[in-house]
Amino acid sequence: MVFMSRRAEFSASHYYHNPQWTHEENARVFGKCANLNGHGHNYVVEVTVAGNVDPRTGFVMDLKTLKDIIAVEIIEPFDHRHLNKEVPEFKQLVPTTENIAAVVWQRIAPRFASGTNCNGAKLYRVRIYETPDLFADYYGEA
Amino acid sequence: MVFMSRRAEFSASHYYHNPQWTHEENARVFGKCANLNGHGHNYVVEVTVAGNVDPRTGFVMDLKTLKDIIAVEIIEPFDHRHLNKEVPEFKQLVPTTENIAAVVWQRIAPRFASGTNCNGAKLYRVRIYETPDLFADYYGEA
Amino acid sequence: MVFMSRRAEFSASHYYHNPQWTHEENARVFGKCANLNGHGHNYVVEVTVAGNVDPRTGFVMDLKTLKDIIAVEIIEPFDHRHLNKEVPEFKQLVPTTENIAAVVWQRIAPRFASGTNCNGAKLYRVRIYETPDLFADYYGEA
Amino acid sequence: MVFMSRRAEFSASHYYHNPQWTHEENARVFGKCANLNGHGHNYVVEVTVAGNVDPRTGFVMDLKTLKDIIAVEIIEPFDHRHLNKEVPEFKQLVPTTENIAAVVWQRIAPRFASGTNCNGAKLYRVRIYETPDLFADYYGEA
Amino acid sequence: MVFMSRRAEFSASHYYHNPQWTHEENARVFGKCANLNGHGHNYVVEVTVAGNVDPRTGFVMDLKTLKDIIAVEIIEPFDHRHLNKEVPEFKQLVPTTENIAAVVWQRIAPRFASGTNCNGAKLYRVRIYETPDLFADYYGEA
Amino acid sequence: MVFMSRRAEFSASHYYHNPQWTHEENARVFGKCANLNGHGHNYVVEVTVAGNVDPRTGFVMDLKTLKDIIAVEIIEPFDHRHLNKEVPEFKQLVPTTENIAAVVWQRIAPRFASGTNCNGAKLYRVRIYETPDLFADYYGEA
Repeated sequence: MVFMSRRAEFSASHYYHNPQWTHEENARVFGKCANLNGHGHNYVVEVTVAGNVDPRTGFVMDLKTLKDIIAVEIIEPFDHRHLNKEVPEFKQLVPTTENIAAVVWQRIAPRFASGTNCNGAKLYRVRIYETPDLFADYYGEA
Repeated sequence: MVFMSRRAEFSASHYYHNPQWTHEENARVFGKCANLNGHGHNYVVEVTVAGNVDPRTGFVMDLKTLKDIIAVEIIEPFDHRHLNKEVPEFKQLVPTTENIAAVVWQRIAPRFASGTNCNGAKLYRVRIYETPDLFADYYGEA
Repeated sequence: MVFMSRRAEFSASHYYHNPQWTHEENARVFGKCANLNGHGHNYVVEVTVAGNVDPRTGFVMDLKTLKDIIAVEIIEPFDHRHLNKEVPEFKQLVPTTENIAAVVWQRIAPRFASGTNCNGAKLYRVRIYETPDLFADYYGEA
Repeated sequence: MVFMSRRAEFSASHYYHNPQWTHEENARVFGKCANLNGHGHNYVVEVTVAGNVDPRTGFVMDLKTLKDIIAVEIIEPFDHRHLNKEVPEFKQLVPTTENIAAVVWQRIAPRFASGTNCNGAKLYRVRIYETPDLFADYYGEA
Repeated sequence: MVFMSRRAEFSASHYYHNPQWTHEENARVFGKCANLNGHGHNYVVEVTVAGNVDPRTGFVMDLKTLKDIIAVEIIEPFDHRHLNKEVPEFKQLVPTTENIAAVVWQRIAPRFASGTNCNGAKLYRVRIYETPDLFADYYGEA
Repeated sequence: MVFMSRRAEFSASHYYHNPQWTHEENARVFGKCANLNGHGHNYVVEVTVAGNVDPRTGFVMDLKTLKDIIAVEIIEPFDHRHLNKEVPEFKQLVPTTENIAAVVWQRIAPRFASGTNCNGAKLYRVRIYETPDLFADYYGEA
């Protein structure tokens, strides 16, 4: 059993806003992040998969496949986008680092189901860095 | 003569748009950056000053003064903001890395004029990193 | 359940010395670190908390609260200090990376007890980097 | 119980090739990595040990011992080498990041057996970074 | 006048060998780098161009053009290659960091001549990192 | 002409104190750095030399020689030391980043004089990072 991790980056805007709260309450809870003009980050997404090493290839799973999953499911829809306005999940969910990690998991998890070309590798963890000093880890729900 | 550099970070949104062009021309020139919903970055601003070392302090200039200049003139008005919408210079100028470097220079340069508490240090360079792999340097106009 | 991590830095001096040993024994075990004049590091402290995401905020816990806990309990008493001379725990304990991780845990753990404003988040891990190439992880005692 | 991690670097060449496959099959599976002229990386090896802190030293284990184990068992035989041609394990195994992690584990694990000068510390994890964006973790076999 | 820099990475093998010297002389001068099996690095190439900012775009030059120049002239022929065996210039030249910087300059400089789509930007500097701790800068010949 | 740069690290303590000032004046000017218990940093020293590439070796100068100069003149006397107490120059000079850069220059410059084994390479710049966000550059006196 080996754990394999790959990172990729996307640049996106977001803001924090709970529509059930007043402007003042949003400002009190979210501070500068409540600015509805939005602000942005160079996010880093790190995906970890776990599995046995195929003795023919030395791979837990094909790295091009893993790269493609991240590119198609995450980078393409998130990069150079406004998360609140252009990623459907964040119409309902505040796009915090925590929620982005969970949404990334939900988007890519089906690609690791049995019968796909992932060599039996399981999705183990999604980590999202909002900055180098702030990051969230999500391992799915048991 | 010693050159002293200090870095700070701000998170901001921007988009690239020339109002004199059609939507198609903006998209052709600016690609994904033309998305008017905006996207964002963790920018790094690096300010370099040059001067003689004061033998009493060992400083080219007081570092708290330098930190305050960056905080008041740049971080406060740029951090967690939308550059196009909230920083007046970028109502006219496209907020490219190049133009951000020049605008930062113009904002902080008066603080290094004679008679200020900068110990005679001169502003030498402003560097802006949009990502770790893309940055612009501006040295003022001779 | 999401794990949220935040980093902060402090600059401090330390030396390694066991008062029950001779000078020679200290030098043999601790090498250059036994120099009683002290030496120093830019330490990085990384605190990880675990909890459920509050659907109203998208937060495991308020990040300003987490930042304040680290600032008040760790950065203020450790930054620009001599750990052996100014942090009481290290009058008895050698301030190795391992022991610093455990002391940081003990200092901040009470702030995550029930009834505090941490939204039920639990302290999960304290990581201390002495340099980018050397770090210790502490998860508390079961 | 504290987990202590130390990093070191080595520069090495490798290529990916399964001798039971045709040239075309190797190219299809391994892409640019199948180039038999080889290419190379600045690898980072990160070794994590776990144990109790010795109250006399504040150490999980002596860091010079850990550094020496990595230097003698890994850096000396791997650095400035061609992994396929000069490291015996990779005559049979494709030197992927996954397999390098497992081989490093096998080489250093005996050094942490009881009776050695590791203070009872156990080898917990070997992490290999091929690039900053791609890494493998191996925890041994249960 | 603004200076704009972009980084990219390539992984390659090399060795140091002067065919006019004996094996012993190569070993004495080049140490571990003389190993003819080759070793490798994750190289970083950083290209800096200088020019005036086009007021219509805010660009010194189009960044996609700069990215394409680096991709076509450097990454494609260097990445996942053995520099001595697959890059013609290094049949004659030892592929040191210094010589790689000069060869990169020679390969990309014609792309910045007048009449190209570089908006009048001049090539200013090529920097090559062999590791994060070792790099060479080349500014062309006056 | 190529510029070659090499980095190395040292961990040291220091404090800022002007003996001609009162305690209050030191505290006012130097803030937390005036704490006479000292604090410390992981310093990075980056030395840049300039010269022509020797066609036999591809080197501006032998990198082992450069590494040895830094090790003998800087790392050995500075690493795991208290700069104020153990480096003679800082009995008189405040060990600011600026002054450390100048002292490093003075210590290593004689090693690049004609007749030494530096292949005619000239010392061009000394850069000292106190933290990743604060650094000083010194180019000698004309």
